[in-house]
Amino acid sequence: MVSAHTDPDYSAAYVVIETDAEDGIKGCGITFTLGKGTEVVVCAVNALAHHVLNKDLKDIVGDFRGFYRQLTSDGQLRWIGPEKGVVHLATAAVLNAVWDLWAKQEGKPVWKLLVDMDPRTLVSCIDFRYITDVLTEEDALEILQKGQVGKKEREKQMLAQGYPAYTTSCAWLGYSDDTLKQLCAQALKDGWTRFKVKVGADLQDDMRRCQIIRDMIGPEKTLMMDANQRWDVPEAVEWMSKLAKFKPLWIEEPTSPDDILGHATISRCHNRVIFKQLLQAKALQFLQIDSCRLGSVNENLSVLLMAKKFEIPVCPHAGGVGLCELVQHLIIFDYISVSASLENRVCEYVDHLHEHFKYPVMIQQASYMPPKDPGYSTEMKEESVKKHQYPDGEVWKKLLPAQEN
Amino acid sequence: MVSAHTDPDYSAAYVVIETDAEDGIKGCGITFTLGKGTEVVVCAVNALAHHVLNKDLKDIVGDFRGFYRQLTSDGQLRWIGPEKGVVHLATAAVLNAVWDLWAKQEGKPVWKLLVDMDPRTLVSCIDFRYITDVLTEEDALEILQKGQVGKKEREKQMLAQGYPAYTTSCAWLGYSDDTLKQLCAQALKDGWTRFKVKVGADLQDDMRRCQIIRDMIGPEKTLMMDANQRWDVPEAVEWMSKLAKFKPLWIEEPTSPDDILGHATISRCHNRVIFKQLLQAKALQFLQIDSCRLGSVNENLSVLLMAKKFEIPVCPHAGGVGLCELVQHLIIFDYISVSASLENRVCEYVDHLHEHFKYPVMIQQASYMPPKDPGYSTEMKEESVKKHQYPDGEVWKKLLPAQEN
Repeated sequence: MVSAHTDPDYSAAYVVIETDAEDGIKGCGITFTLGKGTEVVVCAVNALAHHVLNKDLKDIVGDFRGFYRQLTSDGQLRWIGPEKGVVHLATAAVLNAVWDLWAKQEGKPVWKLLVDMDPRTLVSCIDFRYITDVLTEEDALEILQKGQVGKKEREKQMLAQGYPAYTTSCAWLGYSDDTLKQLCAQALKDGWTRFKVKVGADLQDDMRRCQIIRDMIGPEKTLMMDANQRWDVPEAVEWMSKLAKFKPLWIEEPTSPDDILGHATISRCHNRVIFKQLLQAKALQFLQIDSCRLGSVNENLSVLLMAKKFEIPVCPHAGGVGLCELVQHLIIFDYISVSASLENRVCEYVDHLHEHFKYPVMIQQASYMPPKDPGYSTEMKEESVKKHQYPDGEVWKKLLPAQEN
Repeated sequence: MVSAHTDPDYSAAYVVIETDAEDGIKGCGITFTLGKGTEVVVCAVNALAHHVLNKDLKDIVGDFRGFYRQLTSDGQLRWIGPEKGVVHLATAAVLNAVWDLWAKQEGKPVWKLLVDMDPRTLVSCIDFRYITDVLTEEDALEILQKGQVGKKEREKQMLAQGYPAYTTSCAWLGYSDDTLKQLCAQALKDGWTRFKVKVGADLQDDMRRCQIIRDMIGPEKTLMMDANQRWDVPEAVEWMSKLAKFKPLWIEEPTSPDDILGHATISRCHNRVIFKQLLQAKALQFLQIDSCRLGSVNENLSVLLMAKKFEIPVCPHAGGVGLCELVQHLIIFDYISVSASLENRVCEYVDHLHEHFKYPVMIQQASYMPPKDPGYSTEMKEESVKKHQYPDGEVWKKLLPAQEN
């Protein structure tokens, strides 16, 4: 359930790239929607498919920047984007599958593939178009070369302790106060110290729920708030002045994701150009990347590097279908090779739908433990895919006739 | 042919709303792409169709703001937008059909429907969400009420003289110098005084072509340039400093359409939130609306009103499939009821594909003459639709097997 959405029912576009190699390895990519939009995304994936079909993986990753640009500047499809909405989600799904395939062929999880990669090769995966006014290829190289210092120690640290996470599972808008209390108590028991609460539907309701959660977690633990784009700018200012007494670390998506000048504190965006401006305008105190909304690892790399340049902490968005599985690779790489800091940094965690993944996230003591299986953790269980495939899966066969009545 | 697009081949999503009324009137709506993206847009139109099916037109236009919000905030589809890319194009096509239907039922062209509409009703068509920090409902009402003064005279003036246009038909990037000269000579003969040239592929080539056109049209006539998002910010600054000697009135889309802070002079955008910021940031000297990219008349109204508040001239984007037919209604309404000024204002014209429309634009002495037929001029000729329908139309039946070989 997602707060701003009255009838959410996650579904995902799941891309599988097969090859003619004898290793039988498949690259799996994913992007999700809140339900019905997925057939539109699948339609866009099909429109992009010709870029991948009958291509050699070596040629694709050998000129990954060129390939990224081919996908995002498809002469025919540029008009329906570019780099936003349906087409960009489809791009993410396709590229996520390419990264999964590449990492599997290298026998490494994506985070380790990135950590071990030569800085020049890393930089060659990034399209710097529209961001060279704040980050050039040379800037990126310099950051990555500096990141080599202390890398080994940070990798060890990650393997031992994992990457700090916060939980959004306790405080969705639809929950009763009792459920809120129960989930919160359980989370505290499980070692969670950072909690996100959804707000923005009703101010009185928000005040009561924030009071409950602040009372339960005490004054020291961290509370974040997420408004899911519910407000106009003046409304956001007024509302948040009332909620300030509960001491939120940040307020997420207070208004339209397109409103750069109206923004505040933390935002997830649809591409690197929007992130660039939020950084330039000093409109961000935290930056939220998204592994299924940006153009896969490639575009996320450019955003991680810009964040480093502006010294803004990255706190990834997760949840949905598979976001946790994917984004852990990016943030672990960021710590080891780019930011080298955990200060004010934390990755979202939602305890939802992991059971469908072949390599689900491992949380220990409120931290993401680095995955060890090769790939991008994107592969779903065969059984889950079969059951949930639209419209022929067992789950849909039950649902669809019921909806028609 | 469009400059930034190597294999353009316009296609359009064409929405027809039929009703059970005995008048047999149909509402036709359109949005176009550069070719292959259209099947993705059609998929999104189908995902939105349930908002219109079995609804009463009176209920829709009676709470048009609510209906607009329903479409753009569809709980399931919000994630794949919101208000951008494929989903927003689909929204435009559906709403364009609703406006066509409404205007036909009222027996008026859309511009006249708007001009005659009570300011309160007009305002009730607009969703002010995310723009109330610069334009409230009260601001909008005040602007429209002031616009009543002198309205009758301006309407007469439009009917007699039309709305000033400029032509983009002479100077596409692919044209040879000879073709450029020929088209330019013909356009001068036809009374055109304002010309747009496409730039950005090759600087030397641009210098030569701009010299040719400036020589032909002389120092007094107006020259605009359009870079179709080809540049990064530093590149745009360098390039344009070289082209400045040809005295362009504006440079259009120098960089990513998402780059608000990097923008300059003139831009078409995908929604009112982006326009709002361009106005706030004083990054615009001209504003380009688009009748198939923004959320139909409804969202264009909000942009016209914001432009009036900031006193920025609106110079609509046209071309594509049917853009000229639609946008003339908006700009004629703008002159009569909102801006009341023609200073620095001019509407794009491209002489392309008008033959497929039942009520094609009428250009006289380089001006758009106000259409008199009821509706939004969106209806296509039956014969054209039949021939060009994908994939069963005659044109496609010839094309598709040829492509397969």
